[in-house]
Amino acid sequence: MMMKAARIHDFDPDAKGPDYLRVEEVTEPEITRPDQALVRVGGAGVCRTDLHIVQGLWREVQQTELPYILGHENAGWVEEIGSAVEGVSPGDPVVIVPALGDGTCRACRRGEDNRCDNLVWQGIQIDGGYADYLVTKARNLVPLPEGMEPKAAAAYADAGLSSYHAAKRAAAELLPGDHAVVIGIGGLGHMGLQALSALCAAKIIAVDVSEEALAFAEELGADHLVQASDHTVEDVMTLTGGGAAVVLDFVAEHDVPQAAMAMLRTGGNYLVVGYGGELRTPTMAIMGQEKRITGNVGGTHDELIELLALAAEDTVRLHVREYALDDVNEALDDLSNGRIRGRGVLVPSATS
Amino acid sequence: MMMKAARIHDFDPDAKGPDYLRVEEVTEPEITRPDQALVRVGGAGVCRTDLHIVQGLWREVQQTELPYILGHENAGWVEEIGSAVEGVSPGDPVVIVPALGDGTCRACRRGEDNRCDNLVWQGIQIDGGYADYLVTKARNLVPLPEGMEPKAAAAYADAGLSSYHAAKRAAAELLPGDHAVVIGIGGLGHMGLQALSALCAAKIIAVDVSEEALAFAEELGADHLVQASDHTVEDVMTLTGGGAAVVLDFVAEHDVPQAAMAMLRTGGNYLVVGYGGELRTPTMAIMGQEKRITGNVGGTHDELIELLALAAEDTVRLHVREYALDDVNEALDDLSNGRIRGRGVLVPSATS
Amino acid sequence: MMMKAARIHDFDPDAKGPDYLRVEEVTEPEITRPDQALVRVGGAGVCRTDLHIVQGLWREVQQTELPYILGHENAGWVEEIGSAVEGVSPGDPVVIVPALGDGTCRACRRGEDNRCDNLVWQGIQIDGGYADYLVTKARNLVPLPEGMEPKAAAAYADAGLSSYHAAKRAAAELLPGDHAVVIGIGGLGHMGLQALSALCAAKIIAVDVSEEALAFAEELGADHLVQASDHTVEDVMTLTGGGAAVVLDFVAEHDVPQAAMAMLRTGGNYLVVGYGGELRTPTMAIMGQEKRITGNVGGTHDELIELLALAAEDTVRLHVREYALDDVNEALDDLSNGRIRGRGVLVPSATS
Amino acid sequence: MMMKAARIHDFDPDAKGPDYLRVEEVTEPEITRPDQALVRVGGAGVCRTDLHIVQGLWREVQQTELPYILGHENAGWVEEIGSAVEGVSPGDPVVIVPALGDGTCRACRRGEDNRCDNLVWQGIQIDGGYADYLVTKARNLVPLPEGMEPKAAAAYADAGLSSYHAAKRAAAELLPGDHAVVIGIGGLGHMGLQALSALCAAKIIAVDVSEEALAFAEELGADHLVQASDHTVEDVMTLTGGGAAVVLDFVAEHDVPQAAMAMLRTGGNYLVVGYGGELRTPTMAIMGQEKRITGNVGGTHDELIELLALAAEDTVRLHVREYALDDVNEALDDLSNGRIRGRGVLVPSATS
Repeated sequence: MMMKAARIHDFDPDAKGPDYLRVEEVTEPEITRPDQALVRVGGAGVCRTDLHIVQGLWREVQQTELPYILGHENAGWVEEIGSAVEGVSPGDPVVIVPALGDGTCRACRRGEDNRCDNLVWQGIQIDGGYADYLVTKARNLVPLPEGMEPKAAAAYADAGLSSYHAAKRAAAELLPGDHAVVIGIGGLGHMGLQALSALCAAKIIAVDVSEEALAFAEELGADHLVQASDHTVEDVMTLTGGGAAVVLDFVAEHDVPQAAMAMLRTGGNYLVVGYGGELRTPTMAIMGQEKRITGNVGGTHDELIELLALAAEDTVRLHVREYALDDVNEALDDLSNGRIRGRGVLVPSATS
Repeated sequence: MMMKAARIHDFDPDAKGPDYLRVEEVTEPEITRPDQALVRVGGAGVCRTDLHIVQGLWREVQQTELPYILGHENAGWVEEIGSAVEGVSPGDPVVIVPALGDGTCRACRRGEDNRCDNLVWQGIQIDGGYADYLVTKARNLVPLPEGMEPKAAAAYADAGLSSYHAAKRAAAELLPGDHAVVIGIGGLGHMGLQALSALCAAKIIAVDVSEEALAFAEELGADHLVQASDHTVEDVMTLTGGGAAVVLDFVAEHDVPQAAMAMLRTGGNYLVVGYGGELRTPTMAIMGQEKRITGNVGGTHDELIELLALAAEDTVRLHVREYALDDVNEALDDLSNGRIRGRGVLVPSATS
Repeated sequence: MMMKAARIHDFDPDAKGPDYLRVEEVTEPEITRPDQALVRVGGAGVCRTDLHIVQGLWREVQQTELPYILGHENAGWVEEIGSAVEGVSPGDPVVIVPALGDGTCRACRRGEDNRCDNLVWQGIQIDGGYADYLVTKARNLVPLPEGMEPKAAAAYADAGLSSYHAAKRAAAELLPGDHAVVIGIGGLGHMGLQALSALCAAKIIAVDVSEEALAFAEELGADHLVQASDHTVEDVMTLTGGGAAVVLDFVAEHDVPQAAMAMLRTGGNYLVVGYGGELRTPTMAIMGQEKRITGNVGGTHDELIELLALAAEDTVRLHVREYALDDVNEALDDLSNGRIRGRGVLVPSATS
Repeated sequence: MMMKAARIHDFDPDAKGPDYLRVEEVTEPEITRPDQALVRVGGAGVCRTDLHIVQGLWREVQQTELPYILGHENAGWVEEIGSAVEGVSPGDPVVIVPALGDGTCRACRRGEDNRCDNLVWQGIQIDGGYADYLVTKARNLVPLPEGMEPKAAAAYADAGLSSYHAAKRAAAELLPGDHAVVIGIGGLGHMGLQALSALCAAKIIAVDVSEEALAFAEELGADHLVQASDHTVEDVMTLTGGGAAVVLDFVAEHDVPQAAMAMLRTGGNYLVVGYGGELRTPTMAIMGQEKRITGNVGGTHDELIELLALAAEDTVRLHVREYALDDVNEALDDLSNGRIRGRGVLVPSATS
């Protein structure tokens, strides 16, 4: 059986679009192990990481032969299950945790598949969801709450989960009266801001270059807005009266890491979620004020359940713009040029 | 009344010794507020920070007029107390927490004077203990356990406290089977290694350039020794089978920060205690493996009590080399040239 | 100088009111130590503990000679300060943390005055705020936010702080999708419910015998209401689908402790804030499901600052009913008979 | 195929031995699901819970039809694996976590199989290891370190794991200078004491009625010994100068729970590991000093790996007395009468 899929054929550091991926007919994937599931894709989120992959930024981590199918943010309906699978049945609507853990290392035993010793990222290292079907591990399926459609839920798998994971870690150390800075109000940031607001009572300062993004942040509950400029740090220091307890950075490129460090108060925590740039800091600046820096990637199965609980009661809300799978390059181009509010999601023609 | 004191008169980025400080007669300090105490100095530890001060590295933080008296690691006997002081009496042997907090900000309320909003470091920003007497805040005095002499205890105030503080934070996340790397087995490192060994059951890997320092580490209980070289990271990766859970860095200069990051396992924590160098890392390397970086400076009053409890039962042991206060420059020179095993301590002539 | 005060002259286990306390002329208190402050009372909250004191329940803890002035929940204006006091000045509006710690034990050093080795409760063990003036420790004063009146703030000192302290500990372990049960929607409970709602995203189930109290809970944001009956446990088990993650018990009398334990899920935490009854449980029931029980009394200075931050932005709101100091017995009687919604507060005539 | 097994045929509240179980020929168990493993038993620990089962104390939890095979503390060699099993192979020596979780509920996802929503205890609710063979879940197998024999390792599955789990939770809140009380130096207690000593630097007070047990505790590193009497609480209060930070109770019967609560300092934690008795306490005694009570049952797969790491390096050492499987009743009788130092372990004839 053949299906439609969007694949990457070459890395290109200077890729400007619009022909990032090739939409083509490929063989449908099949279950090859008893613990797998075949899922009919209902929606697949479009992420800045896809652009980074095209540029070759993940090449070393990937170790993947081209061409392969992108898409690490997937939801759909279970089509078929392996012989050892329990708890899900064909027809169930599900969203898929993209971090495929081995399930047996110590990290996986603690539920931290995103820290697995033998971690494989679906859509990054193996075929993903920019297709009609995908094969995944059954342990990565999370059933959708009553009434939630796969195409509306797909982006919870990464934009939602990664930002929730980081926001939850931030909230654990934020007290009433503290300030948290959220840098970058895009696909992840707009979810992180909402998660933070749901999980703690700190004041939230949204930072973005785009006025539109800041207006969006305000709608979502930001207490203060700061348009990125050459005096961003000063603006934040004034608003906070001495520095933020937490900076959640969904950009982490250009000079943002240095600015993020500079706007922390004594003992503050800089949570890195974005990537692409470099952090440079004197060790004295880390030591002298007991600052911290914390990496965040993906999240856990339990955290996706928690996030869906918030979504089901409308405490957080994913902002989604749908594209046909055929229009994947348009979606990537819109993302690359800041034309998407929230998250773009590809919908295969069969399920649109 | 006059007393002897060692003061800094000039900053010199290229200071090579041996005339770092000037030993001279100065006026004895006096209590000027009801919450202060006058302490007769019994011992004052000699720290690499003193060399950094001479080089002007702390100049911006200090905002101090020269000349002033160095010495931030002090113990002695209470000589006189202010009218509002309770809990200590003249004659009591005490060690002094060098972080003088205001006592009223939120950090101080939590006991974290080392994070005070209005923090003043004794011996760095105001006159310290390289002298016969010093005036300090009574809230910073910690009574010595039965039978412990001030000159033997002085170095617990910083070499002990700072390394214990960091080791305690490290121990809180180290499980049996995990590996912790301790870089730099000097004044702080030799205490940090012992504290780590007392507080958890992880395997300890000691790293130093000096064979003598490594032999010292072995005596103190290190499980593995690695002589620093251009394959330090590979050595640690082999010993740990994939990276250390924690790196405790008492050096943090030259290329050590980059090596420290590289030897962490997924989710690992790089604790910065030393300073002087620069950390440079792609944000992708922080994000992708959820690595963390944690600054450490000083410790709390409670932690010094905890450390003295360990010292009193001989679970940790400070290695000290005594110098007369007059020989302060020799002591600094020995430190600068790696000729001290453990910690050098100045003893004023009156109390030697 | 004389002032008006409400004092207890006798313990009476069967006290039914309305003559619990005697309002009389007494000598104005004076500052006797350099770290004290004299405060003109602006409001003093009326608490069930006052009834318990009259009944002799605190007699053993108190070790206090009668008569003395009740009132542990106080706010007012600084009238005079001792010679060693900094940070507050005469005229400042303040609320007073009732747990007077010695300031030097390890618990106080960590900011946990409520766990001080030499703890003295103001209004329970020494004269309190049912009077025109009181003397307290300056370290227990918390300045009021701009625009907040003492009589509106008094009840934050105990009803607010104790319930916030417990709610904060509960929130730290509540995840989205979890259920928290709040038992008793009175002076403390109505604040605890709001604090919980501000600090986490769990579902809140309010339990009370009174329909009026439940209606109040609904206004304050409870997700589910359960009227206490002989099938309370079953009701909660049904709503939660297997037990609550946390039970916050502001009653802790009669058969409530046993019911609270029974409605916990595996690993759940029973937070005891109220008192007066007895907990009886087989150790097998604690062990077999890893249940926990956690005592809560008062809170810290920092927590009162956090709570005032929430109050200043109207995230939590204290419901207060004012009484003249002369009407103290009426207030106590209304409390005893469940006729107060929120908290009763006594206002001295001079400041009403 | 037939094998030898020791089964319970009747509950008897007054069982005095020596005929607690019947050793008889039964059919060998077989793998019926792809995620199971068949294990040849090398050793099966004898636990006080076996006596409690015989007395019917677990009857309500068990819901098991008699007769069935006891033995929840098992180790052996993998004989056969189901089709979906990875990571273990026939011939591997393994120890078995007795808490069989469903692997898909939220607790299991976090690695807390001992808190599984659908928890089944092997040897308590289904056939256990008092036999030549047993069938279990492959996810519950933990490979033994090089050179460790199953019969020497069996008791790590419960006596080891349960006590390590509780000791680890205790150690997380024990600081140098703190005191921890360990009550009951038997099969679990002798391991708990060693684990505590490995994981923190607190002082350990061992309490037991038996002088022999106390001598054993001293060998294992206890700092103080208290023979249980009617002044146990006073003895502990004197040794600790105001109460213990933690009480680890491996008895939890008779008047021990009340004594344990009474010997806690303010904020202290009573960890219940044993069971059989009742805890009775005024809620005021929990509230007023912020005491805590924490149930402990079993442990996690990760914790068993941690414990084996300690055992492999000889930091903790299980004291074992071997019995032939045929002598199961003698072993139970010895246990019942306090004649075993450490833990009794049954060894099937084929593997002895």
